[in-house]
Amino acid sequence: MQENLNDLKKRLSEINDINHAVAVLGWDQQTYMPSGGAAARARQLATLSHIAHEKFIDDAIGRLLGELHEYAGGLPYDSDDASLIRVTKRDYDKARRVPSSLVSEIVHASAHAFEAWRKARNESRFSDFAPYLQRNLDLKKHYARCLGYTDCIYDPLLDEYEPGMKTSQVKTIFQTIKRELVPLVQTISAKLHLVDNAFLHQVFDEQAQWDIGIEAARLTGYDFERGRQDRSPHPFTTSFSVDDVRITTRILHDYFPAAFFATLHEVGHALYNQGIRPELEQTPLADGASLGAHESQSRLWENLVGRSRPFWKFFMPRLQTAFPEQFRKVTVEKMYCGVNRVEPSFIRVEADEITYNLHIMMRFELENALLEERLPVNDLPEAWNKKMQEYLGIAPPNDALGVLQDVHWSHGSFGYFPTYSLGNIFAAQLFDTIKRDIPDLDKRFEQGEFHGLLDWLRTHLHTHGRKFTLDELAKKITGASLKTDSFIAYLKGKYGEMYHF
Amino acid sequence: MQENLNDLKKRLSEINDINHAVAVLGWDQQTYMPSGGAAARARQLATLSHIAHEKFIDDAIGRLLGELHEYAGGLPYDSDDASLIRVTKRDYDKARRVPSSLVSEIVHASAHAFEAWRKARNESRFSDFAPYLQRNLDLKKHYARCLGYTDCIYDPLLDEYEPGMKTSQVKTIFQTIKRELVPLVQTISAKLHLVDNAFLHQVFDEQAQWDIGIEAARLTGYDFERGRQDRSPHPFTTSFSVDDVRITTRILHDYFPAAFFATLHEVGHALYNQGIRPELEQTPLADGASLGAHESQSRLWENLVGRSRPFWKFFMPRLQTAFPEQFRKVTVEKMYCGVNRVEPSFIRVEADEITYNLHIMMRFELENALLEERLPVNDLPEAWNKKMQEYLGIAPPNDALGVLQDVHWSHGSFGYFPTYSLGNIFAAQLFDTIKRDIPDLDKRFEQGEFHGLLDWLRTHLHTHGRKFTLDELAKKITGASLKTDSFIAYLKGKYGEMYHF
Repeated sequence: MQENLNDLKKRLSEINDINHAVAVLGWDQQTYMPSGGAAARARQLATLSHIAHEKFIDDAIGRLLGELHEYAGGLPYDSDDASLIRVTKRDYDKARRVPSSLVSEIVHASAHAFEAWRKARNESRFSDFAPYLQRNLDLKKHYARCLGYTDCIYDPLLDEYEPGMKTSQVKTIFQTIKRELVPLVQTISAKLHLVDNAFLHQVFDEQAQWDIGIEAARLTGYDFERGRQDRSPHPFTTSFSVDDVRITTRILHDYFPAAFFATLHEVGHALYNQGIRPELEQTPLADGASLGAHESQSRLWENLVGRSRPFWKFFMPRLQTAFPEQFRKVTVEKMYCGVNRVEPSFIRVEADEITYNLHIMMRFELENALLEERLPVNDLPEAWNKKMQEYLGIAPPNDALGVLQDVHWSHGSFGYFPTYSLGNIFAAQLFDTIKRDIPDLDKRFEQGEFHGLLDWLRTHLHTHGRKFTLDELAKKITGASLKTDSFIAYLKGKYGEMYHF
Repeated sequence: MQENLNDLKKRLSEINDINHAVAVLGWDQQTYMPSGGAAARARQLATLSHIAHEKFIDDAIGRLLGELHEYAGGLPYDSDDASLIRVTKRDYDKARRVPSSLVSEIVHASAHAFEAWRKARNESRFSDFAPYLQRNLDLKKHYARCLGYTDCIYDPLLDEYEPGMKTSQVKTIFQTIKRELVPLVQTISAKLHLVDNAFLHQVFDEQAQWDIGIEAARLTGYDFERGRQDRSPHPFTTSFSVDDVRITTRILHDYFPAAFFATLHEVGHALYNQGIRPELEQTPLADGASLGAHESQSRLWENLVGRSRPFWKFFMPRLQTAFPEQFRKVTVEKMYCGVNRVEPSFIRVEADEITYNLHIMMRFELENALLEERLPVNDLPEAWNKKMQEYLGIAPPNDALGVLQDVHWSHGSFGYFPTYSLGNIFAAQLFDTIKRDIPDLDKRFEQGEFHGLLDWLRTHLHTHGRKFTLDELAKKITGASLKTDSFIAYLKGKYGEMYHF
């Protein structure tokens, strides 16, 4: 049995190396690659992904998993070996259903689509991107049919990012969100004047923005010996091993929060990967449990820490040192309110904590409509703008500020967006548990002490890697399934105080 | 037959993609990778190289090459297909002799050795690097024995970088070099005072150095849409396709020529790869003919262009604009002499055109001694310092300025160094032919017109990729085998004028 297990681990380790090479090529593609390199890079990504896929769907892996089934059954559910075998089996069964040629085609098409999206966004012209999006959609529909589904075509795609989660569950969650948050946004929209954030819209030296972001990242415990930050049009985190977890940010010279909170957000993702038990390295368990679980960490650090009053009690003097001219006269309270100002706006990644989820909801609805062919690609910009109007009361003046703003669809990532809201919800649920375990959390933040929080997250969440699903983690850590209560209560409490309702 | 050819090309294209992925990982390793990433990177490089090697030594490729032998024989020697089959057969026969496990071991060991070298050089302590060097040597001796040799163990290693070249030929060349250049260095050493370059040792703003390097790179015709420059401890050029050819440089804040000429040098390499016929892309022919051929291009742009009087007649005003304080009072003549000043010094990459070759010669001799076990690794620093004394009349004060200065041995690259001198020699031989074809070359340089030169190089050399060996190219382009005449005449003419001998 040990021999089978070692054979399996060796094969998985090789595949892991290839997938991490793919990640390096992807990182370079989005940070440093000159435009001429795009065609060859698309080919290289397709080739490596194809090889990794071929190696993973090898009959030998199926045989090994079959022979290890009984052995795994005799081990504790949460043991390294049982988890490795269980999660690998889950991945394997899915991967076997998809032809390698389709996987290559998807990678190839999405690399081209990414370049097309980048140019189309620069020129704010959706029609240039439309044929690439259509191609991505067609391929992903084919993909979904290969994986199979009973309820809706969105299910197998969602499952890629959020294992075990069903579209119907997400719909239920968004019903609550819609019921609770759309009226909240309307209420607040009538009181926008109560909170001012004009002081955040000044000119901020880019290097100084970079430096204060790095300072905040260090404060959280992000390890720069095992990571680094670069710039890219769309911030992201990527991992080449638990000891090389990188983040990117983008800097707007005239709006301070963009880069600062992008950094905190990506740091949240990166801390998760840096905190995975080293013993899981080189296995498929060496990643976050799901995108929702991952997003819970980015949003926790970005919002529950970075947009909290205690954080700014500590950090405001540092910010004033970095930008004396812009922030000298800004009080902690003014800053706290400013960075939390709610206002319907065009760009998801800059949206406040409330409207953010409505951005997600509309993407979820549009993706479903596109995949179910209720919405033709060419009508997408119009449908986008209509939903913006319905949920947020505004419509973008052009495609760059609207339908072209996100990278995801260029990558062929349909089913990805809802995980952002699942992350927000889980983060709030986790945070209620953390506050019970660490009652003086606010005081610690006020003193710039964040390692207690990081230690807690490492112990209860990060360490496990991909062993559990999001719902398993919710039960294990908080004692209950994933639920919206904490999140809704958090939003109502925080913004009720700020906007007097 | 066409089916066989297509099958071969498809296989080679896949291998090409993997090798280019290896190149991306290597580029990142030397430019941006955080130190924590080293162990995983070593593993990833080993895995990918192993896969590429396995795919290349596949029996099927041998069978295809066998079946295509006759077809190739009926084609012109320089046709794309005949060349592809010929060069692939050469590579294949060599690769089949080396076990894949050894290839992986070498990649793995050299990735670790590179990290060790970087640290050892920082601390200037050779003993920290010695065990890694020993390991690299042992592996490369094993490698050489796999490839086989009759004359000396250096032959198969040299052949890796300079196909067809023999150690005995290199020895003959270095006999001429030693006979002609050692006395020249001695003559000039007594007249060092004739040329002043103190004005090059001032403080130069790093950003301004970066900018002027980019300006010079643009002038040569280097295409930044298909390339980019980054910083690394040791400058290099790497290629991920003919449309993504990158260079690196390093900047010394107190010595202007370091970054400037490193950029011109790497640009020379990069122009070669950017000039390969696009039809050769995705095949093993899409690279320079050999390292010597490659070095001829880097040295041609660095020295025959960048250290020429006509170049500085054009470029001096631009330099004075970039560094008015430092260069306002420096005449073209003073600049020309300054950047060509001959003086025995410690660091190869900063050496003048004459002593440079003595740096190479001693490395060639030391490598031979190490590989033939006439010199134990632990005695290397002493042997290094002794040879420095013998050929250059100086000895380095520490390992960082001596035996640890170059990256090559950390990569396990033994047999690489002589290609630098072969490049110098070939560059001079080429340049004599170019001057015959473009009689007004100097005038063009004086007007900042370098595209005539680049066009010539593209037409006569770059376009061919790896089709020919260095000696074949020499005959084809200059009408004669590789020979030292032009180079020695060039050095004597240029430096005889400068130092009055």
